[in-house]
Amino acid sequence: MKQKIILTGDRPTGPLHLGHYVGSLATRVKLQHEYKQFVMIADAQALTDHAEEPEKVRRNILEVALDYLAIGIDPKKTTLLIQSMIPELCELTMYYLNLVTWNRLKHNPTIKAEIMQKGFGEAVPAGFMMYPVSQASDITAFKADLVPVGEDQLPMIELTSEIVNKFNRTYNCHVLVNPKAHISQVARLPGIDGKAKMSKTLKNAIFLSDPENEVAKKVKGMYTDPGHLRVEDPGKVEGNPVFTYLDAFDPDKTKSISLKERYSKGGLGDSNVKKYLLEVLEGFLSPIRRRRQEIAKDPQEVWNILFQGTEEARLVASSTLSEVKKAMGINYKSK
Amino acid sequence: MKQKIILTGDRPTGPLHLGHYVGSLATRVKLQHEYKQFVMIADAQALTDHAEEPEKVRRNILEVALDYLAIGIDPKKTTLLIQSMIPELCELTMYYLNLVTWNRLKHNPTIKAEIMQKGFGEAVPAGFMMYPVSQASDITAFKADLVPVGEDQLPMIELTSEIVNKFNRTYNCHVLVNPKAHISQVARLPGIDGKAKMSKTLKNAIFLSDPENEVAKKVKGMYTDPGHLRVEDPGKVEGNPVFTYLDAFDPDKTKSISLKERYSKGGLGDSNVKKYLLEVLEGFLSPIRRRRQEIAKDPQEVWNILFQGTEEARLVASSTLSEVKKAMGINYKSK
Repeated sequence: MKQKIILTGDRPTGPLHLGHYVGSLATRVKLQHEYKQFVMIADAQALTDHAEEPEKVRRNILEVALDYLAIGIDPKKTTLLIQSMIPELCELTMYYLNLVTWNRLKHNPTIKAEIMQKGFGEAVPAGFMMYPVSQASDITAFKADLVPVGEDQLPMIELTSEIVNKFNRTYNCHVLVNPKAHISQVARLPGIDGKAKMSKTLKNAIFLSDPENEVAKKVKGMYTDPGHLRVEDPGKVEGNPVFTYLDAFDPDKTKSISLKERYSKGGLGDSNVKKYLLEVLEGFLSPIRRRRQEIAKDPQEVWNILFQGTEEARLVASSTLSEVKKAMGINYKSK
Repeated sequence: MKQKIILTGDRPTGPLHLGHYVGSLATRVKLQHEYKQFVMIADAQALTDHAEEPEKVRRNILEVALDYLAIGIDPKKTTLLIQSMIPELCELTMYYLNLVTWNRLKHNPTIKAEIMQKGFGEAVPAGFMMYPVSQASDITAFKADLVPVGEDQLPMIELTSEIVNKFNRTYNCHVLVNPKAHISQVARLPGIDGKAKMSKTLKNAIFLSDPENEVAKKVKGMYTDPGHLRVEDPGKVEGNPVFTYLDAFDPDKTKSISLKERYSKGGLGDSNVKKYLLEVLEGFLSPIRRRRQEIAKDPQEVWNILFQGTEEARLVASSTLSEVKKAMGINYKSK
């Protein structure tokens, strides 16, 4: 049986953090053994709302790639690619845009939420409004069977399906593959401030590349149970990010369970739990940090890995584009 | 001094007619001696509102190219190109879309008029809404100084200028060239039904490729002065398309003037004027028709001319794209 194909990736607008690890990176390290996995650094998509900061996008391509390699994404198993270096994706987008109405784009719920969140108002760039179509190109160019997404991104997969169906029907073919959403089962990691989501923008993230003193400082300042004033008071474990982090990262679950019991009853101070959390996080982060530093010594080598993956990926995208143009009958040279 | 560059072209949705000749083709035959002229067959743009009829677009690429060559556009002087075969144009479009707001596209007067005219209603394709940005790519890719347009298309050139200025300002460079509109001075040729505009859709056109009997039939059925019932009645010359056509195509102006006088006074029948008009049109069309038939014997040779022009044009577009990516700092390989 043909190996199933998975497409995933990140916008390179900042280094990756523990929330990314729990939400997607850990899964990718596993899935690369079971699937043909493409991981895309979506620089062109990042430019749709960072057109004035291309240097930031450029810088973060390297940061994100270092994060990938440091956590164990293996370029021999996973194809790493840079989106803007595959012009076939732009061509597909242009053809798909003719199969989607302007109104359909306007009413995409994910986009509507993002416009609010980013505060674009009337000034939303046209490129941003149509990035869902560009995503459909990414997904279909590699004929992905599966796309890992959060619940909030389901409308994106739906739009891709619509485009796939419309294309295959209009041009009477089976060229494009209908993708399935692979919904992440993992709970979202809260920020160190206790907010629901860890995020660079909210400044509540612990990055995979944070040095040890930075991690120590962040853990020390973490939000816990605001009602837990004295050591002897009983504390809340539920919604306490310190314990959520332990659940996610402590390999010794019995130790976590016993700490939770003591904290709930009273008699365990925040600083002691945080001291243990720092130990746990450092047990996880320090080998990643070491590998990252090692790899970062030769940034050109990292670029070369990306260029090689991109070249591989481009062959796939180019073959899909040929099929697309053939189905449309606009492959003038070969007919 | 560097030769000025001109970009122009047509959507290949049908063969070209006398209205095209008077409105643009005649000028191109002249301008090819004074300018570096690119003439684009805009198949990708045609697909923005003909996504379901790619075979029609494909067929008309050849028809339009035959028209060009038959009227004297010389591929040694003019670079003929097929838009969809230059993927760099798609890449430029994607970057430019990030510099234009969604609202700006929505309020483009040319697009608004076209949506009404085409009766899209709510179903206007997203690709159609953004074809003005794709036009900005075409114009800037070849660094056109001049773009021949009708008055109704001025908003397109304005948008291109906005994109050029925004790009050069945002990326602190002078890569893109600000184009000027070259507004056609020639009056529009009315249809054979007397309507203001000759158009394939209105079925009131005489095509450059019409056979002689077809031209004869169309001239015979032409709208004239509806008040001119008997030969001895005075007839109106003003707004009478038969005379407008004579003005445009009769090389013997004294003859036209004398016919107009006789028609105004009364005593000259429509059928006599039409007989003369047919003679005049055939004097113009028959050498074009002969050349067209000659060239059409080897359609592959016509495609080869288009492929060669496209290759030449692609080098220019590719060099502009490199400059664009360098200015943005996203030329990862060469930095």
